[in-house]
Amino acid sequence: MTEIGKRRWAIAEGYIPPGSADPDDPALVSHETACILNTGDEDANVSVTIYCKDREPAGPYRLVVGARRTLHLRFKDLKEPVPRDTDYASVVESDMPIVVQHTRLDCRRSEVALLSTMAFGS
Amino acid sequence: MTEIGKRRWAIAEGYIPPGSADPDDPALVSHETACILNTGDEDANVSVTIYCKDREPAGPYRLVVGARRTLHLRFKDLKEPVPRDTDYASVVESDMPIVVQHTRLDCRRSEVALLSTMAFGS
Amino acid sequence: MTEIGKRRWAIAEGYIPPGSADPDDPALVSHETACILNTGDEDANVSVTIYCKDREPAGPYRLVVGARRTLHLRFKDLKEPVPRDTDYASVVESDMPIVVQHTRLDCRRSEVALLSTMAFGS
Amino acid sequence: MTEIGKRRWAIAEGYIPPGSADPDDPALVSHETACILNTGDEDANVSVTIYCKDREPAGPYRLVVGARRTLHLRFKDLKEPVPRDTDYASVVESDMPIVVQHTRLDCRRSEVALLSTMAFGS
Repeated sequence: MTEIGKRRWAIAEGYIPPGSADPDDPALVSHETACILNTGDEDANVSVTIYCKDREPAGPYRLVVGARRTLHLRFKDLKEPVPRDTDYASVVESDMPIVVQHTRLDCRRSEVALLSTMAFGS
Repeated sequence: MTEIGKRRWAIAEGYIPPGSADPDDPALVSHETACILNTGDEDANVSVTIYCKDREPAGPYRLVVGARRTLHLRFKDLKEPVPRDTDYASVVESDMPIVVQHTRLDCRRSEVALLSTMAFGS
Repeated sequence: MTEIGKRRWAIAEGYIPPGSADPDDPALVSHETACILNTGDEDANVSVTIYCKDREPAGPYRLVVGARRTLHLRFKDLKEPVPRDTDYASVVESDMPIVVQHTRLDCRRSEVALLSTMAFGS
Repeated sequence: MTEIGKRRWAIAEGYIPPGSADPDDPALVSHETACILNTGDEDANVSVTIYCKDREPAGPYRLVVGARRTLHLRFKDLKEPVPRDTDYASVVESDMPIVVQHTRLDCRRSEVALLSTMAFGS
């Protein structure tokens, strides 16, 4: 399929809640995800940069999203995990067009809360 | 009314939670939906392709959204339902301009959680 | 301030949950809202059209959003209220540039759930 | 890094819920945030204007988002805090390109609810 998307995406919101009511279930641990879709026929070389409130950016962290594949990247799985309970933001860059969507699962309480938005592509 | 929208839309996020606290109420079963709006005066021939983490895309699955109609497609109602508890992404293509919005209802716990975002149109 | 926005906005998602756990508190009754912002120095004449799954569109319903004002329109406050527990979509048109954001508050259970997204402007 | 974003952003939704179930935990007090990301190498001079239902706009309130920094602005921290339980909207303007995302945490009940969307940039 023809590629869809942009090569640079920004997510201004970022916050991984501290703790989870049910920490033994990986699916129900509070987390934030950058969902990346590469519809093209070539692998996408992607880099993620983390912006903070009061220090220089961290990264870029590099990863590959295969051709015709999606990768749901948890920010805590970066080489240097994003700390919990801290405001941050992120930029995702790629050498191929991709689509990026941002999602948070908040499990601080016994019930879950969700947010999601398409990132800003340019 | 004049048509509004684009012919290709991408949704990078996709995850249908496993199980529901109240599985006997169809409105309260965890699900994901692609809400499609066709404001034009001709039917839109739509195809949905599902992207996965570690295998080739599935589909395209074909459907029609009538002129001046909206269709809220649950991904579990595709000919080959999207499996639960699995990361995926999707692309919706149409021969007429349409608008696509993505929504999840998470009913794993006794309370519900919601997310929604406009898809990325191109 | 200079005007910001577009003259036509589409919201593909639409669903007002049936019932509320606490129906006596108006702020906690399940509802959907089109939040409209008019930053310009002239009133905006706005019309809202409701699209359905299996019948012709309803409306247009007309309203005015004053210069330099915001109006958070509950869909149940239209002249012909949108029925609950029914899939719908909407288009908001204006003679002046406006910005439209879509929000749902789901109060079926004792806790609340929220979704919101910027509408699609064209 | 090259700058990403736009110089004018609008958020049509705005509502800070009245009260919180757990008012002693600052992280769990109901609030709304404009998350601002400045990826450029110069500080961004930002102004925030608040639009209301039935009176003239308030502000602009001025702040600085440092080069290569993100600032998650709680609307209650403006010089004149946005009142609770009141519909509002906002515009964020900058002399440098920025990205703006809008988030609400609703803690009226014992569980939390979240919404987020990219603002409308122009």
